[in-house]
Amino acid sequence: MAASAWSERTLHLLRRMNNFYLPGSCRATCLRFEIDGAQVGWIPPPVASLLTSYPEVFGPPHGGTVSLCPSLNSYSPRSEAVQAVLQTLRQQGSFTCLKGWRDEKYSVMPRFSDAPLMWMERAATSLFGVKRYGVHINGYTVSDGGEVRMWLARRSPTKQTYPGLLDNVAGGGLAAGDSIKHTLVKECQEEACIPAAIAEKAYPVSTVSYTYEDEEGVYAESQFVFDLELPLDFKPRIGDGEVQDFYLLPIDRVKELLATEDFKPNSAMVVLDFLIRHSFIEPDTEPYYQDFVTGLHQTL
Amino acid sequence: MAASAWSERTLHLLRRMNNFYLPGSCRATCLRFEIDGAQVGWIPPPVASLLTSYPEVFGPPHGGTVSLCPSLNSYSPRSEAVQAVLQTLRQQGSFTCLKGWRDEKYSVMPRFSDAPLMWMERAATSLFGVKRYGVHINGYTVSDGGEVRMWLARRSPTKQTYPGLLDNVAGGGLAAGDSIKHTLVKECQEEACIPAAIAEKAYPVSTVSYTYEDEEGVYAESQFVFDLELPLDFKPRIGDGEVQDFYLLPIDRVKELLATEDFKPNSAMVVLDFLIRHSFIEPDTEPYYQDFVTGLHQTL
Repeated sequence: MAASAWSERTLHLLRRMNNFYLPGSCRATCLRFEIDGAQVGWIPPPVASLLTSYPEVFGPPHGGTVSLCPSLNSYSPRSEAVQAVLQTLRQQGSFTCLKGWRDEKYSVMPRFSDAPLMWMERAATSLFGVKRYGVHINGYTVSDGGEVRMWLARRSPTKQTYPGLLDNVAGGGLAAGDSIKHTLVKECQEEACIPAAIAEKAYPVSTVSYTYEDEEGVYAESQFVFDLELPLDFKPRIGDGEVQDFYLLPIDRVKELLATEDFKPNSAMVVLDFLIRHSFIEPDTEPYYQDFVTGLHQTL
Repeated sequence: MAASAWSERTLHLLRRMNNFYLPGSCRATCLRFEIDGAQVGWIPPPVASLLTSYPEVFGPPHGGTVSLCPSLNSYSPRSEAVQAVLQTLRQQGSFTCLKGWRDEKYSVMPRFSDAPLMWMERAATSLFGVKRYGVHINGYTVSDGGEVRMWLARRSPTKQTYPGLLDNVAGGGLAAGDSIKHTLVKECQEEACIPAAIAEKAYPVSTVSYTYEDEEGVYAESQFVFDLELPLDFKPRIGDGEVQDFYLLPIDRVKELLATEDFKPNSAMVVLDFLIRHSFIEPDTEPYYQDFVTGLHQTL
């Protein structure tokens, strides 16, 4: 069974989104970022070098590890001390990613089930390889004849990240202290004007997890995935200006698009997960079926 | 959010089924098993030692690798030469697993999408850490009121593996040359007397992948998972004698059972995947939600 060009492009997308696990990634040279003896991220060497200028916050690299100073022994002192360093680095213009400062606090924890050890500005998490969590929603319709279509958003051309690309109908990062369902309902409302009465019917189905690196940092992310069947007569509308348009597309077209450069990569993974769960991809005809499933769920 | 005893037991199940990835596993000492330069498995050191007695089939360990002799340069000669060695080892009683000889040929390939390089007797695959593929079917019903129940099988007390334990309604290994759908229909018919007309309505939804080790070998497996909604008036019946009984149970009861020693472990994983995809487990109330999802999809 030969793999199609679509299959190859899709496998390539998954490899790219998991390039931190590939031979030759910065993983071998990254330092573990630890708080109170527990690893919460990965720090690339250039970032670690700069942090040595702040010995009152970050201990010196030792045995492949950078630790927060133990004197910072609880949530608020840690968060505030790191935030002060990040503000300085931001003013110095040391890192491009800090130009995308969001004033959004993300929880830092060894695992999702652990109590947060501190919060960190969202834009800085990749410098520390701190895992970020978010919510993505597959909005779809089912016609009376059973035909499934999916609503896609086209991101605003002025979005800081991935401007102008195709995206799921709604989604967003999980800010410190917010529940997953609350975030889902909020993002549906803000981004696509989906009223809470409809958004609350979204049902949790999966997570999509991946870790990639670029020049500046390590992006370790897990997205909680929800499916939301939208009424046939409902149309998402532009809300907070993060979206420029919405399209309702046949599944074949969505499948084709997810493997193009026109799609935000992690959102394309969420769509791929939908296509697999809803049997639009079959293991006897898709040679990379198992690679697709495992590629959607990588973690360290 | 504290984890329940059920959550802890379920996480433990996933860790156990992926113990090959844990620190302290034999992974560090295993030799790569290669055919024509491509890795197809992992050979534990005791197995590798025995194989040096067959230098016309297996090259000597070199650089952490045991290779099939290059003179065995195609599918049939490789398969037959290895089979002859395995027959000898079986007669010598060297390995317990060979007492479970099945006369079932499994394909050996670097990845599922690759052409098979040879076949190997099913009972021997764990000695070489050769990946095995199978099909598992979640058989369930939905009442008029929307209540979901699941059919479970109780394995025969005379089954060679996991006798007497709870299992999915049907499932089986993928023999060399068989399609996934063909295997599904055959196993539904043989194990549960589900007629082809019903079994063919099963829809592919996922894979469950894991690698565990025991004293004798490495079990690297991927199961293609199908959901099959059964008619309310249909009852599976004992077919080929591999099952002693079938039960139709409420989902809460199935959830409780999957985290007990009464359930065949990989089948319990298939049920866990069902519970997640069908929203019977929710991320705001299950602290290990993301660990569960990633634990169901581990690969090297």
